Amino acid sequence: MAQPIIDNCFGLENARRLDAVDRLASMRDRFLLPQGIYLDGNSLGVLPRDTAAALHDVVERQWGSDLIAGWNTHDWIGQPQRLGGLIAPLIGAEPHEVIVSDTTSTNLFKLIGAALIARPDRVTILSEPGNFPTDLYVAEGAVRMLGDRVLKTVPADEIVEAIDEDTALVMLTHVHYTSGRKLDMAAITTAAHAKGALILWDLSHSTGAVAVDLNGCGADLAVGCGYKYLNGGPGAPAFLFVAERLQGALQSPLSGWMGHDSPFAFDDAYRPAPGIARFLCGTPSVLGMAALECGLAPFAEVDLPALFDKASALGALYMRLMDERCRDVGFTLASPRDDAVRGGHVSYAHDHAYPICQALIARGVVGDFRAPDLLRMGFAPLVTRYEDVWRAVETIRDVVRTRSWDNPLFKVRAKVT
Amino acid sequence: MAQPIIDNCFGLENARRLDAVDRLASMRDRFLLPQGIYLDGNSLGVLPRDTAAALHDVVERQWGSDLIAGWNTHDWIGQPQRLGGLIAPLIGAEPHEVIVSDTTSTNLFKLIGAALIARPDRVTILSEPGNFPTDLYVAEGAVRMLGDRVLKTVPADEIVEAIDEDTALVMLTHVHYTSGRKLDMAAITTAAHAKGALILWDLSHSTGAVAVDLNGCGADLAVGCGYKYLNGGPGAPAFLFVAERLQGALQSPLSGWMGHDSPFAFDDAYRPAPGIARFLCGTPSVLGMAALECGLAPFAEVDLPALFDKASALGALYMRLMDERCRDVGFTLASPRDDAVRGGHVSYAHDHAYPICQALIARGVVGDFRAPDLLRMGFAPLVTRYEDVWRAVETIRDVVRTRSWDNPLFKVRAKVT
Repeated sequence: MAQPIIDNCFGLENARRLDAVDRLASMRDRFLLPQGIYLDGNSLGVLPRDTAAALHDVVERQWGSDLIAGWNTHDWIGQPQRLGGLIAPLIGAEPHEVIVSDTTSTNLFKLIGAALIARPDRVTILSEPGNFPTDLYVAEGAVRMLGDRVLKTVPADEIVEAIDEDTALVMLTHVHYTSGRKLDMAAITTAAHAKGALILWDLSHSTGAVAVDLNGCGADLAVGCGYKYLNGGPGAPAFLFVAERLQGALQSPLSGWMGHDSPFAFDDAYRPAPGIARFLCGTPSVLGMAALECGLAPFAEVDLPALFDKASALGALYMRLMDERCRDVGFTLASPRDDAVRGGHVSYAHDHAYPICQALIARGVVGDFRAPDLLRMGFAPLVTRYEDVWRAVETIRDVVRTRSWDNPLFKVRAKVT
Repeated sequence: MAQPIIDNCFGLENARRLDAVDRLASMRDRFLLPQGIYLDGNSLGVLPRDTAAALHDVVERQWGSDLIAGWNTHDWIGQPQRLGGLIAPLIGAEPHEVIVSDTTSTNLFKLIGAALIARPDRVTILSEPGNFPTDLYVAEGAVRMLGDRVLKTVPADEIVEAIDEDTALVMLTHVHYTSGRKLDMAAITTAAHAKGALILWDLSHSTGAVAVDLNGCGADLAVGCGYKYLNGGPGAPAFLFVAERLQGALQSPLSGWMGHDSPFAFDDAYRPAPGIARFLCGTPSVLGMAALECGLAPFAEVDLPALFDKASALGALYMRLMDERCRDVGFTLASPRDDAVRGGHVSYAHDHAYPICQALIARGVVGDFRAPDLLRMGFAPLVTRYEDVWRAVETIRDVVRTRSWDNPLFKVRAKVT
C-alpha cells in the first residue's frame, strides 16, 4: 500500500502537501459538504451534489407526470439490479450477484434464513460477541423462529477453531463497527468451507472504504449498508450479495412478490426468480434508490486501490497525530495500528469520550461516540482531507487540555448517538 | 351513505353539478396532477404539491447540513411513530398501535411470523385463493421456514366455516385488489376469535378510500401500503398495526436493532421495545418517510366519512355510466355493485382488456389491466372528479366502439403492468 511520506514533525503544511498531491482531491467537488470537519461518514455519508436534482426529477417529472408508467418508462423496476451492478466492483462481485433492496437488517434475515434452510442438519450460527447489534438480533430472531437452532458467539480470534460440523453459518462483520478491526475474509471463509459451513459477511463498514474481494475469497453471502461510505442518505436502501453458484439453491424466507419469477402474472404460488432477483421482497423504494444511485456514481470514476489506500493513510495519519499531540491525556487506541487489519475508522477509548465527542461537535469536528467509552472517527476517502485530520486532532487536543468537555451541556445523552 | 342524486339521462352537466357541490373538490389543489384522467391512484397515488419541497429540505438542509445530527435535530428517529399516528384515524386505530416501516411484504412477514410463534400448537394459516400475490407468497415463505405449518386457501365466502381449532392465523385482504370486493371485517374477525385464531388484515387497497375500523371490529393485526391512496410515492414505506392488547405478547421474527428497547445501548442481546416500536426492524428510509408524510397530511384536513362516501359514489357513477354507455360491447362487471361491499376501485372483465387499457392510456385515460382479463379503474376521492368518471366512460365507449384498441402497439405486454 502506498503510504504517504510523513516526516518527524508533522505540521499543517505537511498535511496540505499531501492534499496537494492527492489524486482524489477533486472528488470533494462532487459533494455539498457541511461546515466544519465531518468525520462521521462511516455513520451517515455526506450529500452528493447531484442528489437533490435527481430526486426532484424523480418526484416531479417521473412520478408526478408519468405516474404508474414510471415503472417501465424510467425503469424503476430495474433499479435493484442496476444499483447492485454499481456496488459489485467495490466488493469483488459480479454485477448479477448483487442487488439493492430493503435494509441491512432485513437482508441479513433473508440470507441467514436461506442459509439455515439450506443446512437443515446443522444447528449453529457462529458469530462474535460485540458484533454490530442488529446482526446478532436478526440472527436471534431467525433462531427463535426456527426453534431448533442456536446462535453461538466466540471472540473473533477463536472463530476459526470454533467452526465445526455443526456450524450451519458463520456470520461476521468484515470491519468492526467500533474498533475498525478488519477480519481476514479469505482465511475465515476457507475455514468455514472446510467444515461445510456457509459464510455471511456484513460489509456495512467496509464498502467504499476498504478493498473487499468476495469472489476472490470464495465468499458465499454478504450484506451491506447504503448510507455510510456509499452516501445514499439517511435510511438508504441496503444491498446483498449471493455468489452465483448458490443463487439457484438458496431461497429467501422473505419470499415477497418482487422476488417472484413473474411478479405481474399474479400467480397464487411462489416461484422464485432464477437469479439474484429472488432475494427481492416487497416494492423497492424508488426515491431511496434514486438517492443511492447518486451516492454510487462517484465510485465509478475513481481508482479504487488509490481510494482504499487513502482511507488507510488518513487513519494512519490520525493515529500518528494522536500519538504526537494527544499523548498522556487519557486516550487509549482501540483500533489496530496495522493498516492491513484496519478499516476506514479509528477509535480511541477515553473515560470522558461522550462529553469530549459533544464538545468536539460544538467546535465543528463531528465524530461519534460508541458505548461504553469510544470516540470514533471515520475517514471517508472521497471527501476527507489530510488537513481535516490535522485540524481534528488539534481540536481534540484543545478540548481535552482545556477540559472544555467538562460542561453539563455535553453530558446530556441524545436519543440517537 | 350519502348517494349523489343521479338522474335518468346522466350527462356531463350532471357530473359537473356533482363536482360543483363536492365539499372535497378543493383538495385537488393540494396535488400536482398529470394531464388526462388518472384512475390508477389505487396502484400509485398522485404527487402532493408539497412533496418536492419537503424532500428538498430533508436532503439539502437536514441531511446535507446537519448530517448525523438529523436523527435527533429533525426527529428522523420519530418518523415511524409520527407517521403511524397520521394513519391511525384512517383505519380505526390508536396512534400508538400503528407504525410506518419497511414494505407491505416485510411487514406481512413480521406479523405472520409473530402470530405463528404465538400459536405454536396450531398448524394453519387460512387465506383465500387469488389474494394479492405477495400475501400468499410471504405466508408461504413463513410456512417454509417454520416447516411444521401449512397455508390453506378457501374462497372468501367459505372462510368463516373453514376456521377451526387448528387455525393459527386468518390472513385476508380487506378490499380485493382486482374485484374491489370488501370483506366483512367485523364478522370474520369475530369468527376467527371464536375459534381462538388471530386475524391479519391487509388494508393496502382500503386505507384512504374506504372506512376501516380495526378496533371497532376487534382486529388483531393489519398491514397496508403507503403508495396507493396515501400518495407516498413509488415504493413508499408501508405500515403495520398491532392491537395494543397484543403488543407485549407478540414478537417480530425480524428483530432488527430499531425494534430494540434501547437501540443505542448496542447490547448483544435482543430485548424488544415495549410497544409498537418492537415491530421496527432496520434503519427507516428517511426520504421515503418524508414523502409519505406529505401524502398523509391532506387526510388530516378532510371529513373522513365524506371522503369515503365520495369514493363509493364515484364507483357507483362509473358503473351506472358503463351500464348506460358501454352496454353490449363485451364488458362484464367483475366488482360488487353494492356500495356496502365494494372498495375504491371497480373492475370489468373484457376479452380485450389489455389492449383496451393500452388504448385508453394512449387517449389519456389511465386505469390498469389485471390478469387475465380485467380493466380496473380506481377512484381516489381526494382528487377524482365526477367529470373525470364521465369522460373516462365516454373514452372507453369510443375506444371499444371504434375498435381503436385493435392495434399491434397496444398488444405489447409491458414488463410492469
